Amino acid sequence: MQFDTIAAISTPMGEGAIAIVRISGDEAVAIADRLFRSPSGKRLVDSSSHTIHYGHLVDPATDETVEEIMVSLMKAPKTFTREDVIELNCHGGLVSVNRVLRLVLQYGARLAEPGEFTKRAFLNGRIDLSQSEAVMDLIRAKTDRAMNVALNQMDGKLSRLIGELRQALLETLAQVEVNIDYPEYDDVEEMTIPLMIEKGEWVRSEIIRLLATSSQGRILREGLSTVIIGRPNVGKSSLLNSLVQENKAIVTDIAGTTRDIIEEYVNVKGVPLKLVDTAGIRETEDLVERIGVERSRQVLKEADLVILLLNGSEDLSPEDERLLETIRPMDAIIVVNKTDLPQKIDIGSVQQLAGEKHVITTSILQDEGVEELEETIAGLFFGGDIEAEDPTYVSNERHIALLHQAKTSIEDAIQAAEARVPIDMIQIDITRTWELLGEIVGDTVQDSLINQLFSQFCLGK
Amino acid sequence: MQFDTIAAISTPMGEGAIAIVRISGDEAVAIADRLFRSPSGKRLVDSSSHTIHYGHLVDPATDETVEEIMVSLMKAPKTFTREDVIELNCHGGLVSVNRVLRLVLQYGARLAEPGEFTKRAFLNGRIDLSQSEAVMDLIRAKTDRAMNVALNQMDGKLSRLIGELRQALLETLAQVEVNIDYPEYDDVEEMTIPLMIEKGEWVRSEIIRLLATSSQGRILREGLSTVIIGRPNVGKSSLLNSLVQENKAIVTDIAGTTRDIIEEYVNVKGVPLKLVDTAGIRETEDLVERIGVERSRQVLKEADLVILLLNGSEDLSPEDERLLETIRPMDAIIVVNKTDLPQKIDIGSVQQLAGEKHVITTSILQDEGVEELEETIAGLFFGGDIEAEDPTYVSNERHIALLHQAKTSIEDAIQAAEARVPIDMIQIDITRTWELLGEIVGDTVQDSLINQLFSQFCLGK
Repeated sequence: MQFDTIAAISTPMGEGAIAIVRISGDEAVAIADRLFRSPSGKRLVDSSSHTIHYGHLVDPATDETVEEIMVSLMKAPKTFTREDVIELNCHGGLVSVNRVLRLVLQYGARLAEPGEFTKRAFLNGRIDLSQSEAVMDLIRAKTDRAMNVALNQMDGKLSRLIGELRQALLETLAQVEVNIDYPEYDDVEEMTIPLMIEKGEWVRSEIIRLLATSSQGRILREGLSTVIIGRPNVGKSSLLNSLVQENKAIVTDIAGTTRDIIEEYVNVKGVPLKLVDTAGIRETEDLVERIGVERSRQVLKEADLVILLLNGSEDLSPEDERLLETIRPMDAIIVVNKTDLPQKIDIGSVQQLAGEKHVITTSILQDEGVEELEETIAGLFFGGDIEAEDPTYVSNERHIALLHQAKTSIEDAIQAAEARVPIDMIQIDITRTWELLGEIVGDTVQDSLINQLFSQFCLGK
Repeated sequence: MQFDTIAAISTPMGEGAIAIVRISGDEAVAIADRLFRSPSGKRLVDSSSHTIHYGHLVDPATDETVEEIMVSLMKAPKTFTREDVIELNCHGGLVSVNRVLRLVLQYGARLAEPGEFTKRAFLNGRIDLSQSEAVMDLIRAKTDRAMNVALNQMDGKLSRLIGELRQALLETLAQVEVNIDYPEYDDVEEMTIPLMIEKGEWVRSEIIRLLATSSQGRILREGLSTVIIGRPNVGKSSLLNSLVQENKAIVTDIAGTTRDIIEEYVNVKGVPLKLVDTAGIRETEDLVERIGVERSRQVLKEADLVILLLNGSEDLSPEDERLLETIRPMDAIIVVNKTDLPQKIDIGSVQQLAGEKHVITTSILQDEGVEELEETIAGLFFGGDIEAEDPTYVSNERHIALLHQAKTSIEDAIQAAEARVPIDMIQIDITRTWELLGEIVGDTVQDSLINQLFSQFCLGK
C-alpha cells in the first residue's frame, strides 16, 4: 500500500540520554537527506540499509545547526513498518527532541497518530491484528510473565492457534460443499452431519480452553486488583509495606486528574498485584472509614481479591463480623495478624465465618506468615502452576468477547446439525464462527474498528 | 585508557515505543553476541561497524526469548565514548527494558553510574570538560536559546575561546623565559614587563567580556525565576494563565518530595520564565497570604524578577504601597491592571513609588498590554537584542567561579608587573591564571572533582 510519510517521538517524554524521532514512509529518506549533514558529505539515499550515520541536523532555511545526531537508516521492506524508516537519535531533552520533530514536520512529514507505525506494520501485512495488540501489551506489561504472554502473542502463537481453528472450519465447509456437489452416494447427509458435529465439537473445546486462560491472562495483563481492609491498627499499612518491600514495587500509578486513588504494583510470585488505594492506607490506616461506606463498597466490588486483616490479640469485634459478612461473595483471604502477642481471638469462629476461604495467621511485625500469604494468593489465581511454562493466555478484552461470540456461534451450528436442520443453515453458523475468529487476527475487520484500536496506542509506536 | 564494560538504560523511564539499553567497553560486542540471535545467524563481532541488526535477545541459560530487538553496533573509535558501543533497542515498557538490562548485567557488564558514558568520552579524550557539561545542559534545556547555548558549548566554542586565552598566557611565559635565558641585552626587564602587562590586560578584558554573559547565560540555562504578587483579586491567576497559554508552557516541575511549590516554565520572547508557585496562585490567588510572611519574603528574595499587579480600578491601598516598598531593591515590573474598568488609581504616585521601574498598564481580561509586558521582560534581561545571533554565553556556575578566580589572578599579575616586583613572582600569577582557565576545559582538574561533576548527570548518558 501507499501512504504518506509520518513522524513522531518514539521514546518516553522526559530527561534522558537519548531520544528518538522516527520517520516512516516513501519520503523518509529524502526528508532526512534534506536536513542531515554528514562530515563526509555522503547522502543517506546513497547509503546501504541498516546503517548508522553521525552528523548534524541543519535547518536548510537558516543553515543553523539544530542538533548533533546519529541517524539509523532502514530501507524497506525489512523494517518495522515495511516502509523506509529513519530514526534520528538525538539528545534526550524536551527542547532537543521537540525541535528535531518540528523540523522534520516542517520539511515534509506528517505527525503520526498514536499507534500509526504499528498500524502500518499491520496494513502492510508484516503482523496481524492480535500481534499488533501484543505490541502495546508488551509496552504496558507490569511483570515478566505478562511480558512473556505479550511476547508469545507478538510472536504469533495466538495467531497460529486461531489460524488452525479457522483452517479446520474452512476444511469442513469445503468438505461439505464437495459432498453436496458430488452426491455419488445418496447418504450425503449422513456423511456430512457427523463430520460437522465432530469438527464443531473440537473447535468448541479449543475455544473453551482458550477462554479458560482469560481470567489469568487478564490478571497478568492488568494486575490482580487487590484491596486490604480491616479495623484501624490491625496492621494494614505494615502488610502493605511488607508486600511492597519484599517484592520490589513495579510501578506506581497516579491517576492524572484526581489524586484520590493511588495504585501500586507489586510482583507476588509472578502475579502482578495491583494494590488499590495504597495512599489511603498509608495515610489513615483505614480505607473503609476514610473513603466512606458507599465509596468503599465500590472499591470492594471492583477488586479481584480482598485481604481482610483481623487482630489475633483481640476478640472478634462486631465490626470484624460485619466485614467478614461483606466479603462473603468475594475472592478473599482472611489474615489473623499479631501472633506475636497473646492470642484472644476465637480461630474456630473465624474459620466458621470464613467458610471456604483461606485463613492465614501472621505476625507481619516479625515477618511470619507473609510468605504463606503470598503463596496462597498465587495458588488462588494460578492453581499453583505459576512456575509452569507459559501457555497461550488470552488477555485482551476484545479477543475474549470475540471468542465468546464464536463459541455461541459454533454451538448453534452443532445444535442445528444435531437437530438435522438443512445443511446450508448450518453452513451459515460455521461461516460466522470462521469470521468471528478472523476478527481476532484482523482478517475480517472493518476500517473503523482498526482506527479505534490503534488510537489506544502510545505516540511514536 | 582501559576500562570495564558498562551498561545502562539511556532513554527516559516510562511507556514509549522504544527504549534503549546502551553498553560501552571492550566487552560490549562479546556480551551482546552472547545474548543476541540473528535470523541469519551472523555474529556482531563479524559485522561491520555502524550497522543495525534485527533479532531476538535470548537468555543462554534457559534458551528463552527475552525480547525482540534491534541492535546498533558501533565499534571503536568513532563512537560516543570512543569505546565499542552497543545499543539494544527494545520495546519501551518498564518490564521490557529492565529485563534486557538485567540480562546484560548478568552476562558481564557493570551498571553504569550517572554520567559515566559521557565521563568516558571525556577521559578517552573525545570531548573536554566544558563540552561534557554542555551535554547535560542540552538535555535539561528549557528553551531553544538555552539549547543553542549548550549546542555551541558542546561544539567547543567556549573551549576554543578558553584555549586562545591559555595559549596567549603560555606564549607570554615562554617569551619571558627566552628573554631571561638569553639576556643579550641588559634591558631584559624593560622588554618583558610591558609585554606581560599588555597580554595580561587583554586576557583580563576577555574574561570580563565572558563574565558579562554569565547572568544572561544563567537565565537561559535555569530560567528567569519569576514571582507574581499583588492583592487578592487583582488578576494574578489571569496573568499566569495568559502567559502560560500564549507561550506554550514548556514543562511543569513538581518537586519530588514536597508538593509545596510548583514551577512552570514558559517561553517569553526567547526568555525561559520559571514561574514560581503557580499552584499557590492558581489555588488561592494569593501567594503572600498563603505561604506566610516569612516564607513569601524568601520566595521574593530568590526571584530574579517580581511582577507586581495593582488594580487600576481602585485607589492605591496601604497594602499596595507596602508591596511597592518591599520590591524596591528588586528587579521588578509594575503592572496596573483592569484598564477596561473606570480608572481610579493615581498613576502619578504609582510612577513615583516605582522609581526607575517599568510601569505597564494592562487589561489582561481583554488581552491588552500583555505583549508589552513580555517585551519589557525580554528587554530587561537581554537589552532587547534577544533576536541577535547567539554569543558564547557562560552559564555554568563552576565556569563562572573559575573565571572570577582567573580574573583576580591575572589582575594580581598585572599589578605586580606594574609594581615591578621580581619577574618570577609575576610568572607564578600568570601560571595560576593558566591553570584556572584549564580547569574549565578539564585540563588541570583532579579526579575527585571529575567524579563529582559527572555524578550530576542522568543515568545512561
